[in-house]
Amino acid sequence: MTNKTQWTLQALADFLGAELSGDAQTVISGLNTIQDASDNQLAFLANPNYQKYLETTRAAAVILKPELADAYPGNKLILANPYLGYARLTSLFDHAPQQSTGVHTSAVVDASATLADGVRVGANAVIEAGVVLEEDVIIGPNSFVGANSRIGRASRLHANATIYHGVTMGAHVVIHSGAVIGADGFGFAPSNEGWIKVHQLGGVVLGDRVEVGANTTIDRGALDDTVLENGVIVDNLVQIAHNVRIGENTAIAGCSGIAGSTTIGKNCTLAGGVGLVGHIDICDGVHVTGMSLVTKSITKPGSYSSGTGMSLSADWRKSAVRFNQLDKMASRLSALEKGFKSRND
Amino acid sequence: MTNKTQWTLQALADFLGAELSGDAQTVISGLNTIQDASDNQLAFLANPNYQKYLETTRAAAVILKPELADAYPGNKLILANPYLGYARLTSLFDHAPQQSTGVHTSAVVDASATLADGVRVGANAVIEAGVVLEEDVIIGPNSFVGANSRIGRASRLHANATIYHGVTMGAHVVIHSGAVIGADGFGFAPSNEGWIKVHQLGGVVLGDRVEVGANTTIDRGALDDTVLENGVIVDNLVQIAHNVRIGENTAIAGCSGIAGSTTIGKNCTLAGGVGLVGHIDICDGVHVTGMSLVTKSITKPGSYSSGTGMSLSADWRKSAVRFNQLDKMASRLSALEKGFKSRND
Amino acid sequence: MTNKTQWTLQALADFLGAELSGDAQTVISGLNTIQDASDNQLAFLANPNYQKYLETTRAAAVILKPELADAYPGNKLILANPYLGYARLTSLFDHAPQQSTGVHTSAVVDASATLADGVRVGANAVIEAGVVLEEDVIIGPNSFVGANSRIGRASRLHANATIYHGVTMGAHVVIHSGAVIGADGFGFAPSNEGWIKVHQLGGVVLGDRVEVGANTTIDRGALDDTVLENGVIVDNLVQIAHNVRIGENTAIAGCSGIAGSTTIGKNCTLAGGVGLVGHIDICDGVHVTGMSLVTKSITKPGSYSSGTGMSLSADWRKSAVRFNQLDKMASRLSALEKGFKSRND
Repeated sequence: MTNKTQWTLQALADFLGAELSGDAQTVISGLNTIQDASDNQLAFLANPNYQKYLETTRAAAVILKPELADAYPGNKLILANPYLGYARLTSLFDHAPQQSTGVHTSAVVDASATLADGVRVGANAVIEAGVVLEEDVIIGPNSFVGANSRIGRASRLHANATIYHGVTMGAHVVIHSGAVIGADGFGFAPSNEGWIKVHQLGGVVLGDRVEVGANTTIDRGALDDTVLENGVIVDNLVQIAHNVRIGENTAIAGCSGIAGSTTIGKNCTLAGGVGLVGHIDICDGVHVTGMSLVTKSITKPGSYSSGTGMSLSADWRKSAVRFNQLDKMASRLSALEKGFKSRND
Repeated sequence: MTNKTQWTLQALADFLGAELSGDAQTVISGLNTIQDASDNQLAFLANPNYQKYLETTRAAAVILKPELADAYPGNKLILANPYLGYARLTSLFDHAPQQSTGVHTSAVVDASATLADGVRVGANAVIEAGVVLEEDVIIGPNSFVGANSRIGRASRLHANATIYHGVTMGAHVVIHSGAVIGADGFGFAPSNEGWIKVHQLGGVVLGDRVEVGANTTIDRGALDDTVLENGVIVDNLVQIAHNVRIGENTAIAGCSGIAGSTTIGKNCTLAGGVGLVGHIDICDGVHVTGMSLVTKSITKPGSYSSGTGMSLSADWRKSAVRFNQLDKMASRLSALEKGFKSRND
Repeated sequence: MTNKTQWTLQALADFLGAELSGDAQTVISGLNTIQDASDNQLAFLANPNYQKYLETTRAAAVILKPELADAYPGNKLILANPYLGYARLTSLFDHAPQQSTGVHTSAVVDASATLADGVRVGANAVIEAGVVLEEDVIIGPNSFVGANSRIGRASRLHANATIYHGVTMGAHVVIHSGAVIGADGFGFAPSNEGWIKVHQLGGVVLGDRVEVGANTTIDRGALDDTVLENGVIVDNLVQIAHNVRIGENTAIAGCSGIAGSTTIGKNCTLAGGVGLVGHIDICDGVHVTGMSLVTKSITKPGSYSSGTGMSLSADWRKSAVRFNQLDKMASRLSALEKGFKSRND
């Protein structure tokens, strides 16, 4: 379906495979939350805390679960997962301007690059020798694709993205602006003359449907490749070091950093600001809470944390002082227990 | 006032509205700290710890508080806030080269973009359809401004900055190199087929006099806009997620990250590396110390912290082990107290 | 030596100054770890845990220490530091495509810039007035070099790097894509009208053989310069604030942040995600472990840490609650000790 500014409720029900109740010809011109929707918008009710808004919403229609269908007399789309329904509909209402077709005259494309049908290359973009851009790839203005890299079907680089040489991407990959894929891993050997650079001879491989956030960096491998499997999503300002491997559908929130040669399983979620040290293995299904540091391998699915809770700085300073006395406190506690026990014997 | 390399002390006093004492025709060719100033430079005394340098400074003149005026016999500018005076003077002594006037021939500017008088567009910059650049806007070389974005009067993008479509900026905004404004918020719905992208339909609105540091990222909103109000200043490598709202004159230091839909009040200061989880509200006048994680809303002004103090790693390891035993230690302490109390009853 | 795809074992022994044992004419077409090497590759044994692979490796030859030479009957290079040998050899096997010679026709180079022999300037790069590029400098596509900056011999900017005006680099410096050198330090004075910008009048000075990772930011100084001495290596997404000084051969891993005016000595190593507050001094030879916050000066070499260990979130929450009770726990412990002592007196 091509984007339009208005849809009938029937068309949206068909798109989602949702049950429609009410006026099928209702015109929908946008999406919104149930509390903020205006009378030409379709709202969704995903969070049970917001059920109270069913009484007051001005929405033209509401997407809700079967269990709540009877609670709302107005126009509705009934769907097992309303949030997923909303997510799918956003593609219909995304009116972001399209990049012009073809190769902009100011772009610099090496004669040996291969551009399939439907490829768009933006103004002042640079495509080096031997690059392969598959069908419908979009290269944003001022972006760079290094020699011999390959970008899969319908993938998109936004403006000012940088792909070094020897990077391979699957289909439907999205790379946001400022992201850098394939810079050298941080490898140096100490010597009497200072650090000797370990040239990074591997590449980077991104699977299908990978999304990489703005200003995120994914380094090339030292000998082998750095690998993100299908469906991995990465937020902004994330650092993924050389030879990291990330399993399918794992999600990594902003400002996280993953050190070299660490592997992460499938369906993991790292909250923002998480750090993983190098050379460890995280199994499938692990969640790490915000700004935690993972210092060893994790072999059981579950949620993991480090750090301390927040408090007023004045209170916190007292706790922080005591933290550094903890070992002594533990010894004093043991001594007391012993003394108390011997008195009672 | 246009920049010059030399000013008389009188001219600087007039610029600041400061009381001048000494030789008004003294020529000043630079600014410096009181300890490092040479004899053609104007120094400032802001930190009382540096008062001792009044005796030895070689400065041509000193900016100081009325209370200290008598302590210094030389040329001086007397001002209630010497550091603020220094800050204001830096604009006169900033000899950074100016970008060439007009639109560089290598820039690619869409015919439908509107460029007001005095706009400068650098080499290889790209300006898309429907963009509006108000009077005296400067677009740095290799920067990108997406379709229908609007940049207010006298704002400046440095080189290699990226503005997506549908971003609105006020007047006198400064965007440093590598910053990315308006990339997609990190919104995905889980499904049996993996993550389904939630297209981000909102924009970004920056008020007047906002400054955004190098390689900082500010994402567009999911439905509504992400908003930074007038006078917000943001350092380098900061992540501001979708639908965050930041109140007037709040300052955010480097490497901080603010998760989605969180609001921050006016006149707050986040030190470096601070993290805020999503969907919380921070009231006006809050300070958060370095690398603290804020996990819940803050309703009272004040300073907040998390984390632990630093120590030698060998000592720290003992404390860290004990940290994970804290709940047991607390129970043992309670048991001892009970036992002791029952013995004494 | 120019790069080739194949080398004889003798040539590699000569390059390293290693003792060769076995067939000197063995053809080596790549490098690998001892466990993964194929029969045309040279492996190295650096980690004693991998000694077991000497029995099963398929490598064409192995670099190993003199102590282990007798343990391996095959072709070998005997060297005191096998990892360093491997590091040196990577330069021979790095087949990254070379940037085209000369200045690309689409680059915009100001007439007043000075380009020495052998300088390469990539497509759509922009070089401003007064810039000096010494012999064999390589400027990547879409990069920017601001007015009056100077880049030393054989240094390289990768694509989309940004160098502001007035930055000075030594020889053999490497700047990865997206790095920003010389943006304004985060200096503002509070006033009744909001934040007043402190124009940053200093520059940035990088010594010889400095390497700066992708999307790392190094700010210009307020009055003096920000300085990285010879041989400093910096990973991706690191923030180095104004007037920081970093001593020779110090290494800084990804996602670290160093606040303004802090100095770091020689031969220090900061692990990933480390934070240093401003205006402190770190002596030579300090190591800081991952995601630690350094809040005061360090005057003795050694390893330093902050934070807590990781645990399951459910367990962690109990410890985090107790952390905020630590001062009270310590008082209760003291009270018990006193009570117990008085009973025993």
